[in-house]
Amino acid sequence: MHPPFPHRHLLGIAPLAREELLTLLDLGDSFLEISERSVRKVPTLRGKTIVNLFLEPSTRTRTSFEIAGKRLSADVINVSGSSSSTTKGETLIDTAANIEAMRPDIVVLRHAFSGSCELLARRLDCAVVNAGDGLHEHPTQALLDCATIRKHKGRIEGVEVAICGDLAHSRVARSDVMALSRLGARIRLAGPRTMIPIGIEQLGAPGSVTVHHRLEPALEGADVVMMLRIQRERIDSGLFPNTREYSRIFGLNSRRLALAKPDAIVMHPGPINRGVEMEPDVADGARSVILDQVTHGVAIRMAVLYLLAGGAAAEA
Amino acid sequence: MHPPFPHRHLLGIAPLAREELLTLLDLGDSFLEISERSVRKVPTLRGKTIVNLFLEPSTRTRTSFEIAGKRLSADVINVSGSSSSTTKGETLIDTAANIEAMRPDIVVLRHAFSGSCELLARRLDCAVVNAGDGLHEHPTQALLDCATIRKHKGRIEGVEVAICGDLAHSRVARSDVMALSRLGARIRLAGPRTMIPIGIEQLGAPGSVTVHHRLEPALEGADVVMMLRIQRERIDSGLFPNTREYSRIFGLNSRRLALAKPDAIVMHPGPINRGVEMEPDVADGARSVILDQVTHGVAIRMAVLYLLAGGAAAEA
Amino acid sequence: MHPPFPHRHLLGIAPLAREELLTLLDLGDSFLEISERSVRKVPTLRGKTIVNLFLEPSTRTRTSFEIAGKRLSADVINVSGSSSSTTKGETLIDTAANIEAMRPDIVVLRHAFSGSCELLARRLDCAVVNAGDGLHEHPTQALLDCATIRKHKGRIEGVEVAICGDLAHSRVARSDVMALSRLGARIRLAGPRTMIPIGIEQLGAPGSVTVHHRLEPALEGADVVMMLRIQRERIDSGLFPNTREYSRIFGLNSRRLALAKPDAIVMHPGPINRGVEMEPDVADGARSVILDQVTHGVAIRMAVLYLLAGGAAAEA
Repeated sequence: MHPPFPHRHLLGIAPLAREELLTLLDLGDSFLEISERSVRKVPTLRGKTIVNLFLEPSTRTRTSFEIAGKRLSADVINVSGSSSSTTKGETLIDTAANIEAMRPDIVVLRHAFSGSCELLARRLDCAVVNAGDGLHEHPTQALLDCATIRKHKGRIEGVEVAICGDLAHSRVARSDVMALSRLGARIRLAGPRTMIPIGIEQLGAPGSVTVHHRLEPALEGADVVMMLRIQRERIDSGLFPNTREYSRIFGLNSRRLALAKPDAIVMHPGPINRGVEMEPDVADGARSVILDQVTHGVAIRMAVLYLLAGGAAAEA
Repeated sequence: MHPPFPHRHLLGIAPLAREELLTLLDLGDSFLEISERSVRKVPTLRGKTIVNLFLEPSTRTRTSFEIAGKRLSADVINVSGSSSSTTKGETLIDTAANIEAMRPDIVVLRHAFSGSCELLARRLDCAVVNAGDGLHEHPTQALLDCATIRKHKGRIEGVEVAICGDLAHSRVARSDVMALSRLGARIRLAGPRTMIPIGIEQLGAPGSVTVHHRLEPALEGADVVMMLRIQRERIDSGLFPNTREYSRIFGLNSRRLALAKPDAIVMHPGPINRGVEMEPDVADGARSVILDQVTHGVAIRMAVLYLLAGGAAAEA
Repeated sequence: MHPPFPHRHLLGIAPLAREELLTLLDLGDSFLEISERSVRKVPTLRGKTIVNLFLEPSTRTRTSFEIAGKRLSADVINVSGSSSSTTKGETLIDTAANIEAMRPDIVVLRHAFSGSCELLARRLDCAVVNAGDGLHEHPTQALLDCATIRKHKGRIEGVEVAICGDLAHSRVARSDVMALSRLGARIRLAGPRTMIPIGIEQLGAPGSVTVHHRLEPALEGADVVMMLRIQRERIDSGLFPNTREYSRIFGLNSRRLALAKPDAIVMHPGPINRGVEMEPDVADGARSVILDQVTHGVAIRMAVLYLLAGGAAAEA
């Protein structure tokens, strides 16, 4: 008995109202329990077809969507390839139009180009889920982050969240700032100057986001410390001197973590570069909820697939 | 209550009688509706195992067979690889014999070598479906083409079909000529001299096929215009000067399409090289039924899998 | 009503007692029949999630596990990659911990590093199945070999088994020696001196294993002749002169096979290098049970998945 979800697609956090975010989080929580059962499967989406169209490699996200779909009894078909072989928007649309002609209920798209999901959604009749598009958005990651924070902190409203690292190349950060801000969190962004886009605080509600060029002020008194992944291909790109230098100034170690609240939780979208953005003892420490994020990921994706495949309608 | 289908394999159009082609088309039409349901799945092939053995890359055809199998509730296992790593017939047979020892009901084979499917069928006990073998045949493509034509023209008997492009390297064209001719269509083949094999008209019934070295006479008064894909690897191979030249002389544009009947439909086996063999406005125009071909593809493959996996027997 | 199986994982043959091996073989025999039915599927593991984590390529073993899981109605998710991209044990553990957070029931691991499965099992809560780890073990292959021998010879106790070829680089040989010896077989190992590790006979019970540097004495009077695969990458590595030389001295041909008992069976873990370790007429001859090994492979893997996913408990 959740309120109606008026969207046909999940293209990003940007188009979602606060109430809709809460609907997704609540529904995700209710699906969490299915993965803990002995029989981890419900017949809700039996006879629905989900195509995982991953034109940028991502084992983790693809696996999470595949497990989510199968636990709802949908048929899941994996289609992989490279974005570059479908470089021209025209060709991506041809690929997607072909898939749509096979009558899937949902296409989950991962693509190297920002805006590719929206392009598809404008052309296709079936539902489109953004599983990461270029530097634009990664909405299911933001939703699973919100779900994890709410579980561990009991609320999102008023929670102090530090998001640290390469903010310029992170679709995760963009989606997280929008989602967390809309749900009332206060956000501190920290990273090297070269890695903070000008105006990024405007993604959040006025006054909800502060920007820092050192890690320490962002960590101080934080409830949540989220470290972003440094992509290996950015290293030696001139954006920062080298890995050791980055780690020395922006890496999370237990000494720095002590600046945050005593019960602060540590998050990371994965995969972790151990010893670069985060020391192993923090990643594996008692305050790390990194694997809990992964568990919430399956549940949130079940919620998204359920709503967009008309699970609610089917049940009624 | 369809007539019996006396074949254990689908190796090509060549061995199929007119009545058998009609059985497959009728059955395909009846499966078309399943993909339009809210619950797109029937339990017909539950407990059957289908192995998609794709030793030549083909995302579209593999996806179509996978969706077809899953909508019939079969278990579908994808096995990919390269034909060259199984270059010696002996090795392909070893691969297939191993798969057969795991007791699949059907092996769907895509392979770069002509005759590979027949080789397998002679050795294996399970059913073999040809999903494209070298320059030989691609029977499910021909069947879906016939199904699409019959739907839009109401009949195949007496329909004028132009098939245009690189006829020398097209297993689709070969299968289409045989199927369409057997069902009573009249066929005009058109392409550069270098791309028309001598004697190709003999694939059809006597008098049913004409050959043209220019596009215009083939299009004139046609009910159906089917353009073949120019494979990128043929370009600059000496078979024709270059892409622009090809497009200028043999590409389908709206001016040329006006030579066909006013209600002529436009077909293409995909993927389209837009601007080479077909202009975008024609590919996306009101007379294009290209995506409808894809939709019929799933239904035809359901029909083939159903017949060969003993669906009929299982029901009785 | 089989006796309890007290292991949470299947990491190798080494930790298994004779009775436990027999439990697995008996259960495998009982599953053999499912693959011969018209509806090759039982609902035993419905709602269980099996992840095939293959970080070393292996189409055959992956396919066998996938079919085994699906015939038990489990959801099977394939994750492939390369061991080298997860070279550091740390990273492999991160990968596996992430997968585990998605709540699979079983992770089936194939990895290029010896000991990788044990490493995982120490860290993960879910069951781990070794599908081949470096030069260490390949327990399901040994189990299917035992099952095949028992079927054809009626027993394993007292059976004379020759295992011939590159014993130094064969996890199959190691697992086979342990399993067969524990079940009472007598084992003759044969291969070039450069391919027999010192002390390999100590993998078997005292007195149960003999080592030979020529093929003939190993074959004489044998009930079972198992030829190992010469890995192409070992050829020209200095371990032996060349393929022709190897074949001349250590290849199995019908003349040499005549040294074994008249009803001796011929086995090979596949894929065969025809003309190198085995002549085609022997591989395809009346005494070859190579494809029967593959059939038993699916059944044994069903037994393993069934026991580790708590199938027994679920039924009770």
